[in-house]
Amino acid sequence: MAPRVGFIGLGTMGTGMARNLAKAGFPLTVATRTPGKAQAFARELGGEVAAAETPEEVARRSDVIVSCLPDSPEVEEVHLGTRGTVRGASANTVVVDCSTIDPDAARTIARRLAESGAAFLDAPVSGGQKGAIEGTLTFFVGGEAAALESARPVLSAMGKRITHLGPSGAGQLGKAVNQILVAGTLVAVSEGISFAQKSGLPLPALHEALMGGAASSWMLDVLGKKMIARDFAPAFAIKHQQKDLAILLKAARAIGAPLPGAALAHQLLSALEAQGRGEDGTQALLTLYERMVQPA
Amino acid sequence: MAPRVGFIGLGTMGTGMARNLAKAGFPLTVATRTPGKAQAFARELGGEVAAAETPEEVARRSDVIVSCLPDSPEVEEVHLGTRGTVRGASANTVVVDCSTIDPDAARTIARRLAESGAAFLDAPVSGGQKGAIEGTLTFFVGGEAAALESARPVLSAMGKRITHLGPSGAGQLGKAVNQILVAGTLVAVSEGISFAQKSGLPLPALHEALMGGAASSWMLDVLGKKMIARDFAPAFAIKHQQKDLAILLKAARAIGAPLPGAALAHQLLSALEAQGRGEDGTQALLTLYERMVQPA
Amino acid sequence: MAPRVGFIGLGTMGTGMARNLAKAGFPLTVATRTPGKAQAFARELGGEVAAAETPEEVARRSDVIVSCLPDSPEVEEVHLGTRGTVRGASANTVVVDCSTIDPDAARTIARRLAESGAAFLDAPVSGGQKGAIEGTLTFFVGGEAAALESARPVLSAMGKRITHLGPSGAGQLGKAVNQILVAGTLVAVSEGISFAQKSGLPLPALHEALMGGAASSWMLDVLGKKMIARDFAPAFAIKHQQKDLAILLKAARAIGAPLPGAALAHQLLSALEAQGRGEDGTQALLTLYERMVQPA
Amino acid sequence: MAPRVGFIGLGTMGTGMARNLAKAGFPLTVATRTPGKAQAFARELGGEVAAAETPEEVARRSDVIVSCLPDSPEVEEVHLGTRGTVRGASANTVVVDCSTIDPDAARTIARRLAESGAAFLDAPVSGGQKGAIEGTLTFFVGGEAAALESARPVLSAMGKRITHLGPSGAGQLGKAVNQILVAGTLVAVSEGISFAQKSGLPLPALHEALMGGAASSWMLDVLGKKMIARDFAPAFAIKHQQKDLAILLKAARAIGAPLPGAALAHQLLSALEAQGRGEDGTQALLTLYERMVQPA
Repeated sequence: MAPRVGFIGLGTMGTGMARNLAKAGFPLTVATRTPGKAQAFARELGGEVAAAETPEEVARRSDVIVSCLPDSPEVEEVHLGTRGTVRGASANTVVVDCSTIDPDAARTIARRLAESGAAFLDAPVSGGQKGAIEGTLTFFVGGEAAALESARPVLSAMGKRITHLGPSGAGQLGKAVNQILVAGTLVAVSEGISFAQKSGLPLPALHEALMGGAASSWMLDVLGKKMIARDFAPAFAIKHQQKDLAILLKAARAIGAPLPGAALAHQLLSALEAQGRGEDGTQALLTLYERMVQPA
Repeated sequence: MAPRVGFIGLGTMGTGMARNLAKAGFPLTVATRTPGKAQAFARELGGEVAAAETPEEVARRSDVIVSCLPDSPEVEEVHLGTRGTVRGASANTVVVDCSTIDPDAARTIARRLAESGAAFLDAPVSGGQKGAIEGTLTFFVGGEAAALESARPVLSAMGKRITHLGPSGAGQLGKAVNQILVAGTLVAVSEGISFAQKSGLPLPALHEALMGGAASSWMLDVLGKKMIARDFAPAFAIKHQQKDLAILLKAARAIGAPLPGAALAHQLLSALEAQGRGEDGTQALLTLYERMVQPA
Repeated sequence: MAPRVGFIGLGTMGTGMARNLAKAGFPLTVATRTPGKAQAFARELGGEVAAAETPEEVARRSDVIVSCLPDSPEVEEVHLGTRGTVRGASANTVVVDCSTIDPDAARTIARRLAESGAAFLDAPVSGGQKGAIEGTLTFFVGGEAAALESARPVLSAMGKRITHLGPSGAGQLGKAVNQILVAGTLVAVSEGISFAQKSGLPLPALHEALMGGAASSWMLDVLGKKMIARDFAPAFAIKHQQKDLAILLKAARAIGAPLPGAALAHQLLSALEAQGRGEDGTQALLTLYERMVQPA
Repeated sequence: MAPRVGFIGLGTMGTGMARNLAKAGFPLTVATRTPGKAQAFARELGGEVAAAETPEEVARRSDVIVSCLPDSPEVEEVHLGTRGTVRGASANTVVVDCSTIDPDAARTIARRLAESGAAFLDAPVSGGQKGAIEGTLTFFVGGEAAALESARPVLSAMGKRITHLGPSGAGQLGKAVNQILVAGTLVAVSEGISFAQKSGLPLPALHEALMGGAASSWMLDVLGKKMIARDFAPAFAIKHQQKDLAILLKAARAIGAPLPGAALAHQLLSALEAQGRGEDGTQALLTLYERMVQPA
């Protein structure tokens, strides 16, 4: 029998993910921190989709609970707060948090839920809003393998790749690796394209040539094209990249992994935040390189 | 009628390239700086492949001359020296240099050859030894479009992509962009994998997950796998990457394009050179990150 | 009449500071988080030095309270906790915290104490243990000017320079500037001396020459000499520098000040922490540069 | 008897230095690359100051020859060119070059002059135009100790500190250490002051407090004050710092000393060069930090 699924957090990512769960036929109970948003969603989708007032209530009605929230404080509140899922969870509940948060916070939540018998998986995603809508997310999963097996049908409705990386926190660490790569490649792409501009090279022809070899990357392909088109709308917003970099740089110091390249990316992007461009896509980093050299 | 082709420099890259020219049926005259090497190559291939003693002699016998050499001094010697191609070139000769050298040096050589009526294309390649052997190189081309059209059949026998980027020097600038991207992505991949190691994550599973999304790149795919397998044999040697970075950082200052990320890569790789690992593949950068944190 | 002074936190810095207060003749009540430490200190000094069990008790007996603690959580506990100074403070109490903490934490504590009528100054220091013992500290002060005037005689007994920099938090921001300078200069000194070593230059003669001109700094003078003598005992421990850098990089992002140089210092020092050398003096950064280039 | 002195290069530094030699009573023969400049100088000073047409002529008339020139090509031309000092030098001549050039170039010139029996000292200076005028320069000297003893009275007339650091090239390496320190401290000072600005701190009061402790440096003292006063006139021009950094980064790679901090300084300053501010003083680096965060 299909597990009853709870979903908490209908933001940029969560909305698409919850829709895919409903589409897959899971009985679904949703809750949101913003009052009324869950109710509107339930009304819109109808069928077996219901709204709950609190995470606690979601927990009472669900076998697998998925949350997708901005940062650690919200995740802690939703799961460990006075109306948190921990109050309504039972020994069979599996809680899957898809937020990108501090690995230590993930471990703490796992420990606290375990005291109530519930299992917790940290399962941050990559793939962006597009992947959330299309159901093609990648899940980086930390926690008990048995819990992942229980939750797997649910995750499979939202993504195409589910990778178990180890105990609690390992999902967050895996996502951190993803963000280290993304941030470093972003700097490389921004430097390459700003150098090409200053050199007066024909950007589209060059881009095509570069994509044929060792310089190619998803970032060059997708964000490089946006840079050339001067489209700075967010695929992934600077402020989100910066939140993730702040988390991972703290984790890196704790595990003993120096990251001078990622730290450089964090500092350069902080200049764009200071300019008031935190909502722009990360490809706007190109404009910082342009600005640095504009004649005085 | 097929142009008569000259080839100068039978090193790591040149040997495969010259073989592909012979295979394509061009009448071929080869020369090398190392005495006897060209003769041995001609004997081995036979047919329409002949050896010459000097670049000047190559020039007298060829319509299109291709050179593939270590750095600017060798390219200058081969083309402008006392037995250089400039002495044997005629008004119809097209000289194509595939070495990665300073854009200014490329412009100087072009100017000097133009005084003899010959055309010069700077056409550095990407694709490595593998691409040279398989005839799948990418050419970044600077110089006159008409000269490129004359040389195109020759280049097509050695590569799958030929991109004209502008006047003399533009090929070198395009290759510089390629190397900026490669160097920056290398730092990102090294940081990601060293962080993953310190986190105790299962590297092959993580690698596969990362390749599915925004973190993916040729460098993560090919060099990331080598890092995980601890295979530090050169696909591209650190000393070559460093030569290219030194050239491009000088060019970047001249054109006014600051590159803090590429400069960081250059400094980190210089530590490996100092260790005596300049012949290793660039993926050995991972070991610097490991070494930095080994317990005292 | 001399104000009654309270002192909380008898660590590396606090012990010397409290002794100077006793020596200056202030009636002194001390408390420590470690049970018994305050009592032992009071017994040792005798005279008008007494021990209290809790910060609350210190507050009841003091006009000016000085605290010197490791980090924000301890400062918050001591002042805002259930036995915090806020419980014993009156409308005339001035609380001076000399710890280096997050500027936001300082502002929060000031606001909470203000609700009880008490004034709060954030007054982090520079000068190290030596300055604490000798009474030659520099105080970077944030908070109300009137409160500073009340506390000035107390601070004057512990330091030679008291600089008022603005409202609550400004003292922490001023100390952050100090730490940015210290960290960046440390990198410069480490790079200079490791370059000199690899060059085979006579270090003491070179050091003397460098101190005569634009390259001179306190860091080169004091830590440069220790590097040359290979004395890595802590004047200022790496772990403390790292705590301060983590705080200031977070603050820098919040106020919009990118710091690529300070971020580089933070990453390099994190490699030494990962090696297990967090207790060493910051001058041990030299050894990271040495290690990076040792032959494989 | 006082040695006859030759001086070649009456630029920003050389003019003051040559004046001090004349003032000290040395018979002086001057030459310049700019025609007429040496003659005007000789006329102005009169007495035992004469002008020569070529470096060769200077060499014929001098026991100790001092040169102070922009970069390696000029130094090579003046000493090794067809009218270079090498043509006029004898077995007793000591050539002292005070330019900041590549250590390898210094070694080459020393070797070539040694073939004529003449001794060569590389003796780059620190102290700036002010030190040149006031005769308070520091000399970093490489070459034979005996040659330095012959030249010491001459150098003493121009500087207050003469440090022998080893064989040919050692003076340049010592100057490189000076420039590593200066560049790294410049980044630190720029970051500290831009952070202070964004924090709204009172800069003069903060500056004074910082100068009292571990954050203090010549750069903070002199250039920090200029930054606060927004005086960007050159004490030391960005283009000169950049020339020196390019030389030393090349030398660092050759000797095996990675310098990520100095490389960062070089990249940031290259942005100012690209803006057209190469003639400004290095303290203008502050404006790059300001520009990076100005609202879009």
